[in-house]
Amino acid sequence: MQPIKVYADRRSQPSRAVIIFCWVNQIDFEEVTVDLFKSEHLTPEFRKINPMGQVPAIVDGRFKLFESHAILRYLASVFPGVADHWYPADLFTRAKIESILDWHHSNLRRGAATLVMHTVLAPFLGVATSPEAAKQAEKLLMQSLGTIASVWLKGDAKFLLGSPQPSIADLSLVCEIMQLEMLGDDVRDRFLGAHDKILIWMDNVKKATSPHFEEAHELLFQVKASMQSKGPAVSAKLKITSKL
Amino acid sequence: MQPIKVYADRRSQPSRAVIIFCWVNQIDFEEVTVDLFKSEHLTPEFRKINPMGQVPAIVDGRFKLFESHAILRYLASVFPGVADHWYPADLFTRAKIESILDWHHSNLRRGAATLVMHTVLAPFLGVATSPEAAKQAEKLLMQSLGTIASVWLKGDAKFLLGSPQPSIADLSLVCEIMQLEMLGDDVRDRFLGAHDKILIWMDNVKKATSPHFEEAHELLFQVKASMQSKGPAVSAKLKITSKL
Ligand SMILES: N[C@@H](CCC(=O)N[C@@H](CS)C(=O)NCC(=O)O)C(=O)O
Ligand SMILES: N[C@@H](CCC(=O)N[C@@H](CS)C(=O)NCC(=O)O)C(=O)O
Repeated sequence: MQPIKVYADRRSQPSRAVIIFCWVNQIDFEEVTVDLFKSEHLTPEFRKINPMGQVPAIVDGRFKLFESHAILRYLASVFPGVADHWYPADLFTRAKIESILDWHHSNLRRGAATLVMHTVLAPFLGVATSPEAAKQAEKLLMQSLGTIASVWLKGDAKFLLGSPQPSIADLSLVCEIMQLEMLGDDVRDRFLGAHDKILIWMDNVKKATSPHFEEAHELLFQVKASMQSKGPAVSAKLKITSKL
Repeated sequence: MQPIKVYADRRSQPSRAVIIFCWVNQIDFEEVTVDLFKSEHLTPEFRKINPMGQVPAIVDGRFKLFESHAILRYLASVFPGVADHWYPADLFTRAKIESILDWHHSNLRRGAATLVMHTVLAPFLGVATSPEAAKQAEKLLMQSLGTIASVWLKGDAKFLLGSPQPSIADLSLVCEIMQLEMLGDDVRDRFLGAHDKILIWMDNVKKATSPHFEEAHELLFQVKASMQSKGPAVSAKLKITSKL
């Protein structure tokens, strides 16, 4: 069987989720780097893979797919070696995971990705920053973290929904939260510091997917280091107060 | 078997999608109206059903679920009478539908719902309007409609992805676009007028789910009428130019 192709930029959180998933589940794949900082996602060639011009995207033979959640569901469904806990066949458990995945888009992702974009990333990508958008995103991110902790991390279960094993929702959401590294340690801590449960859960996901988790995140930490050596600290831009 | 409970406000587009789905597929359900204009979604009672305080949500016996896409997938999976085309068992076709459903959240929905919120709805819900958010939403909505027409409505197929029958993605997206009725005829036409394909597709979805589609949308048209009798036209607020 031909390996699938995964079009990804490891600086992108949904790209990392797909890559980690493939590694952990020993899915044979070829990683094709689409460098977002070089606008490689906007080339006509890449638009033939994903007309949206976004990563991640996969090609499996003649079959093309984009949207990381759809990709994770697909991989979990077509590769027989993937353990059931990633995307359970049980309809009730699966529905609860779907609910988290759907919620993710307009809450955690919208908060985290918009905040990172309108603080540290925009200058690198030549996008105009909006303080209003950053402020809204900050609020949504705080709310979203609170929701994860209070709704899906009840008791002392290791993973979302009280599960002893991770699902694709754990992987997707934790990769999203990892993106906050880009904001620098102090800002990240102000978001996550109040949420012990989230920190423990993130660590559980990391351990369950180690050493792949760390490997997929190496580039993120490099970008973080290079960003911190340039430009003003994000905490200054965000005017983050003690209320956070 | 006890009927499921569907907590909904028919002024909400994802609520309508779930209600229409149940009617079309003869799923026995009790509709529990959660009046958003009366803030019934914020009561402690409703938060026991959906901690996010949003509609739609369902209760099936002891099982609770929120997020309309997750609900539609669940209903299509557990009720054996639901025809396969709504949520195909074929993994490739299903994956493409998942991709559209995931895309919906951060594109069509974000565009349409934010635009409606920051123009006509905010005053009714006591939310502050943001011209910046409305402008961004307008752009995203235009892009999203273009994407639907050029990526998923190729050729002269009746439904998304060239399908001869509708899926839950058709239903969800069309209910979303119907929300533009709230903006009044002239604004709606400026968004949809350039997209014959979308108008034909919407009509196909309406016909495939008639008379339930019309029944679920009755309240929307009443709200539209009452909104038009109050307040300035949206076209004035949006400063919509001929470029649209
Ligand atoms: N909902 C999509 C989001 C994809 C996405 O936003 N990708 C970003 C990188 S994290 C991207 O390619 N951005 C480039 C662009 O939008 O122009 C998913 O989960 O795959
Ligand atoms: N992604 C969710 C969206 C749910 C949603 O935004 N519902 C709105 C009505 S359309 C609501 O309940 N809004 C009240 C609120 O957010 O306070 C879904 O598809 O079910």
